[in-house]
This record gives sequence, structure tokens and C-alpha cells, in this order.
Amino acid sequence: MKLTNYFLPVKKDKPKEAEIPSHVLMLRAGMCQQSTSGIYSWLPLGKKVLDKIENITKVEMNNAGAVEILMPTIQPSELWIESGRYQDYGKEMLRIVDRNKKELLYGPTNEELITDIFRNNIQSYKDLPLNLYHVQWKFRDEVRPRFGVMRGREFLMKDAYSFDTNLDNAIKSYNKMFVAYMKLFKKMGLRPIAMKADTGPIGGDLSHEFIILSKTGESNVYFDKSLLEMQELFDKINYNDNLQECIDKYTSFYAATEEKHIPKESKNILGELINTKGIEVGHIFHFGQKYSEPLNATITNENGKNISVYMGSYGVGVSRLVGGIIEANHDSKGIIWPKEVTPFMCSLINLNPDNKECTKISTKLYEYCKENNIDVLLDDSKESIGSKLAIADLIGFPFQIIIGPKGVKTDSYEIKIRKTDTTINSSLNELFNYICKNMV
Amino acid sequence: MKLTNYFLPVKKDKPKEAEIPSHVLMLRAGMCQQSTSGIYSWLPLGKKVLDKIENITKVEMNNAGAVEILMPTIQPSELWIESGRYQDYGKEMLRIVDRNKKELLYGPTNEELITDIFRNNIQSYKDLPLNLYHVQWKFRDEVRPRFGVMRGREFLMKDAYSFDTNLDNAIKSYNKMFVAYMKLFKKMGLRPIAMKADTGPIGGDLSHEFIILSKTGESNVYFDKSLLEMQELFDKINYNDNLQECIDKYTSFYAATEEKHIPKESKNILGELINTKGIEVGHIFHFGQKYSEPLNATITNENGKNISVYMGSYGVGVSRLVGGIIEANHDSKGIIWPKEVTPFMCSLINLNPDNKECTKISTKLYEYCKENNIDVLLDDSKESIGSKLAIADLIGFPFQIIIGPKGVKTDSYEIKIRKTDTTINSSLNELFNYICKNMV
Repeated sequence: MKLTNYFLPVKKDKPKEAEIPSHVLMLRAGMCQQSTSGIYSWLPLGKKVLDKIENITKVEMNNAGAVEILMPTIQPSELWIESGRYQDYGKEMLRIVDRNKKELLYGPTNEELITDIFRNNIQSYKDLPLNLYHVQWKFRDEVRPRFGVMRGREFLMKDAYSFDTNLDNAIKSYNKMFVAYMKLFKKMGLRPIAMKADTGPIGGDLSHEFIILSKTGESNVYFDKSLLEMQELFDKINYNDNLQECIDKYTSFYAATEEKHIPKESKNILGELINTKGIEVGHIFHFGQKYSEPLNATITNENGKNISVYMGSYGVGVSRLVGGIIEANHDSKGIIWPKEVTPFMCSLINLNPDNKECTKISTKLYEYCKENNIDVLLDDSKESIGSKLAIADLIGFPFQIIIGPKGVKTDSYEIKIRKTDTTINSSLNELFNYICKNMV
Repeated sequence: MKLTNYFLPVKKDKPKEAEIPSHVLMLRAGMCQQSTSGIYSWLPLGKKVLDKIENITKVEMNNAGAVEILMPTIQPSELWIESGRYQDYGKEMLRIVDRNKKELLYGPTNEELITDIFRNNIQSYKDLPLNLYHVQWKFRDEVRPRFGVMRGREFLMKDAYSFDTNLDNAIKSYNKMFVAYMKLFKKMGLRPIAMKADTGPIGGDLSHEFIILSKTGESNVYFDKSLLEMQELFDKINYNDNLQECIDKYTSFYAATEEKHIPKESKNILGELINTKGIEVGHIFHFGQKYSEPLNATITNENGKNISVYMGSYGVGVSRLVGGIIEANHDSKGIIWPKEVTPFMCSLINLNPDNKECTKISTKLYEYCKENNIDVLLDDSKESIGSKLAIADLIGFPFQIIIGPKGVKTDSYEIKIRKTDTTINSSLNELFNYICKNMV
């Protein structure tokens, strides 16, 4: 993509409304724009990151055997009256009355609707286990929307729902999602920690939150430092392996959010106890028959008995993750995108588009990247050199290649690695090699 | 995908609520399910088609130089009050009051919001032309939702918005979209016809509808038969060519929807006048300064003058197209998917999963397809043979491969082509070749 054909409305100054780094940086980097309190438009750069996070999530859900569907944003109130949550949800639920005076609502979550789909279509244990997921916009009418997309009102969530014939199988489904979450956050360049968690309005008796550490996180968390080294347990495991063993090993180390923290218990741990802040990016629940009973979602089990199906639900905060990843990856100059979710792999900066040689070399590199499916943003604008370099740091792609009149004369170009802030000088030929080796 | 791991709740009987073939077939093929009047959940098979249509649309929008963003579903009322459409839109607009008594609405279209994004970020002609698009759910509170996803209340639309410095450039942007639409509908396996159209509540002075022909269409259309042969004008053209010439040639033939039809004019045409029914799948508008003036979206032009920006908007009915494509492609047995948008390329039907040889051959073919990135659905269920074959016809993938005990013994397998209802007998070796040649 050439910058002059793109829409990247960067801002030099810190926007007044933003408190935390990710919010400041998303606004400054032209990734999003608020349309009204807690509701955002995603501009091109933000949309690309959102898509990458969504795709990584979907691929791992598919790997784990979940099947994608798409439920609507607007739901009928009847289902929530059936489950008993219509009143409970209170003011956070955006309630709507349509032209025929029918009560609707903007779904804050989908347990009721998925249970309705299940009961309309599945009657036998033979069709189980089943895990259905979707990625859809949700709405929670927060008292105080803040922190940009981290705590917006309209937000994108991946939510999966598992259906099983009994508790044992339901735990197996839960375990698959536990493992999937450890894998998928890693694939976004993050280091997730799973923690015992409260179940809140979703309910149930078994629940874990997936937390990424960040000074600006809203959750107060306690965990055994050894957990930071346990990710590889999940990297190697396949979904058909013994997941319980792996999860037991992981959860034998202490980790709890504030609500579940038991100081006495945490004092007996072997490793070092860390108390810090974190951002919740995923949450999984087993809640058995909590929804299937009131909604009458029954199946005939292996013994010919009619039972309410066992369920769990599994959420990933897709839009929140964009902010979360920035909270965990930035410096004073801007964002430092992990390769896995970066909107573009490289800023190709033509310092002087009026210089024919600069433009020739830039175009050559640009075409080369395109041929090799490397997503580059060619800065062909007429901004000042200082401004170009500052913008490249702000938008934070992993690599910057700088083409200037001096370099053209001496066949020496700068490659800057955003993360380490190191610079390599390279001839044009070496540059092609470097691109192939590091950016594909 | 193996059917036993999938969620494909097919129905044998015609659902009572459905009138037109696409609605009947989508419900019977387990593609979607209504949650409340005019609001649907997309089940796995339906979601796959929706994704394919969305992707084809996006690729062509990108080819035409448009840039993807994502605006939210919920909009503030202020912008609509500014444009003067808040009252005009009447009961079709889903109006919402949030917990702070603020008036919101579920966007039925996005002219106001995109104009707001534009005015907040762009001040100079130097940043134009610009075309921003998104694919997002919309809501229109129809008096009488019907025909399934063809006229639902919550529907998925691709809408693009162009911004230009003057009328000439705005027409160039309009022409690009005209050509893009002719290309993208073709890429969905359709034969679109562009027709002069009314502008309705969007406004403006130049507008075309893109129609696909169907007996069950809601639009009454009149056109010169020769237009059916004019698609190739657009197949060959590139976006940098002289588009006006190409469009002038195409639009010199008579084509108009009912509202724009002039019987006198249509009598003078050279070719045969066809009057039939069609489905509107796209609609493009040039409306100049209709929104930029009231919303004060101004730019400094080349002469240093402050002017209201020239705009157009361009919609593709993504969810409606799923129904539209089925209306144009089905028979008494079920859907006949065009290859371009089919959810799976092939039904691989194991007639007897209890037969070890059948299962061995089926698995071999299944793995082969997976390795070659051919999306197959392996029917490994224990349904009766008759039921399996009926389901394969109903869900309508382009190819069926039938593995039965007799065939295993004689090394002879049936390949059925859904569209022509022809059957080829083939050895296993020939089958691998056939798959490679026809399904990749």
C-alpha cells in the first residue's frame, strides 16, 4: 500500500480524552475514532489489526474442533425472560423497542440464543460433543466507558459454546478451550497467564480468566512466578493428547485474580509470588445446566434418558486485545507491533519522493515486497524527513527501510528494527536478502 | 470437514414460514435460522457462503483502490439531526435510548457517520480522491420482513463512500465503482445488469441499481436483451483505462427499473425489450454535496478555495446475495452452488461407514483433498443411502463423489456434477486426477 492512497490520519499531540497509552497511541496512530461515548470507528490501520486478531482466534478455534456460525447482534427479549436474566442484567443491557412495540436487546453475550439454536436442532447424544462459536459485535451499556477500545460499549468478542452429554465430557470440552486459549494468545505475540476466576453474571462453578500483564491493567492479580515459564506445556500439546494432565500441572501453580485470591494459600507456594496488574483478554466458563434447564434444551443420552445438556462458554475479547497488545508493546515513541499482529510488516520510507533515484529504488523494493506477499506501507508522501521517521516509529511496524538521496549514491540503506531500535546498513542486494529472510 | 463433526441441521419438509425457494432451501439446508422476525442466525453452511461473498466483494473493492475501515453498528442521533434525515427516516430506523437517556440508533446506512469521520480528518484536496468502505451489519425496521435473508431487518451490507474535489473527479470515482460492481457480481457466478434507478432516501442525481434476474425478484425491470452479452466489456477493463467510454457503451442500451422506465423511450430500442423480475443486489449513488454541506465537510481545493466535498455511496447487499444466488441457482432437489461461492467444493459420500474398505477409500480421498486445499464435506454419518444422496443434492455443492461397497470391489466410483446432473464412473486413480483438474 502506498501512503498517498491510504487513509492514515495520524495526530502529533496527545488527545485530551485519552488516559492510558494504548488509547493515546491508537488515536495518534489513526487506528480508531470515537463516534460517541464508548463507540468507535476502526480506521484502516486499526481494522487490519482487528482482522489479524480475529483470524488467529478463528484458526485456533477451528483447530480445536469448534465450528463457526454467526448469531445476530439483536436478540428477542423472550429468551432472556426464559433464562431469568432479563431483569438481572440491569442497565448494562441495551434495551430496544421496535416499531411493533416488541422488546428487543443488543446482545451483551449469547448463552440464551445459542441454547435456543441448540434446542431447535439437536435432540440426541449422537450429535455431541459440539462446540459452536462466532465473532460478533456485542454491546454493554457501561456506566463509565473508558480506556478507548479496552472498555468500550460496542465491542467485538469471539464467544464459543460447548454442548456435552455429561460432566466428564463437558470438562473435556472445557479443557480443549483452556489449551486453545493458551495457544492463541501466544500466537498473537502475548504471554497469557490462566487464573482461577469469579464467574460473575455468566454463572457456573469452574472458570478461568486469561490475563496479560500490564501496569495499566484493571485486574489485580497474584501468581507464582514460575508460571511465566510454563507456556511451552501448551505449545507442544495436541488436542487429542491428555489435556487434563497438562492443565493439572499448570494449575498446580498458584494464580488467582483479586476476587479468588486467598492470601493464606498463596503464602505456601514454592516459587516467588507476584502481585501485579493485568488485562483480562479471555474468560472461560463451565456452567453445566444453568441455561439448558430453564430453556429446556434436552437430549436423549446414551442410556435413553432425557437430560438437560451440559454447557460451557468461552470468550475472547477481540477488540479489547488491540488495546491490550499495545499496552504490552509500546515505548515513548509509539507502538511496537509483534510480528504476528502487525498491520504491515514494514515501513518503506522514501525520504525524498521528488528525487528520481530514491523513487526508483523505493518502487523496486515495494514491487519486490508485493511479489513476495510482504505487506509494506510505502511512505511516498511529501512530509518532512523528521515527520516521516516519527510517524514510522509511532505506527510501529517491526521493520523500517529508509531510502534517502545519500544512500542512493553510496548504495547504503538503513534497516531499522523497531523493537530493539537498532539500525543495520545494507546495500540494495543485501536488502533483498534481508527482506526475504526476515519479513516473509 | 467430517459431517459427524459438523453442524448441519437439514430439514426434510418445507418450513411453513417460507414462501420463496431461497428461503425454503436455506432453512432446509440448515444454513440459517430465524431468532425473531427478520433476524437470522447464520449456521455453519450459511456462514461459509456469507464469508465468500464478503471476500469477493472486498477483493474487488481493494482492486478498485478503496480502503477498508469498520464503522460501528450503533450511531449517535446528532449526526442524523445535522443531515436532516433523523425525522425523515421514520419508523424504519431502529431508535434506541441508552442508560443516560442519550438517543442512539442502529445504523441503516452510514453517509452521516462517514462524513463525520471525513470532516474530522481531511482538510485538503491533496488527500483526495478517497474511497472508504466497510462491511457491517445494518438494521432497517421493515414493516413486513419476509423472504428470509432477502428482506431481513438485520442485514449485512458492504457500503463504500467516495470523496472528491469536484464533479468530474466524483464521476470518475462513481465509474470505478460501476465497473467494480460489474466485475464482483460476475466473480460470484452471477450475471448482473446495471440499470438506471431512483435514488430514494439516499438522494442524489445519478444512480444505478445492479440487478440479477429471477422470477421471484421484487423489482420489475425493463432492458434491451443485448445487455446480457455485454459483461465482457467489464471483464477486460482495468481501473486505469477509460472507464467512461466503456460505461457509455453499456448504458447506451436501454435498462431501467420500474420507477425509471419510460415506455416511449424503450420502444425505440434496436434489440428486443425484456420485461421481467429481478433482485437488486447493489446500488450506487452520486449525491455531490448533499451530506457534506449540512455536515460542513469542507476541503481546500487546488485553487485555495474552501468547498464542500463531493461524495457518492455504493452498496452491495452481502447477506441478501446469499438468497439471491440461490434464487438464481436451484432446482426441485435443492441448491446448485456456483463454484465461486459454494460452501464446500465437493460432497464426499461414504455410503457405508461400517464397511472398512469404504471408509479406507473415503479417508484417503478426504486426506488428498485436504492436502490440495480442496474444501470437501465427508459424509461419514450412518444415515440411509437415500437420505445421504438427497442431502447432497439439497446442499448442492458442485461435485459429489460416491463411495459404496460395490464400487470398492470393482474400483469404480461415481462422480456426480450437481449442475448438469450427470454422472461419471471412474477408477480411484482417475478420481485423483479428476479432483486435481476440476476442483482446485
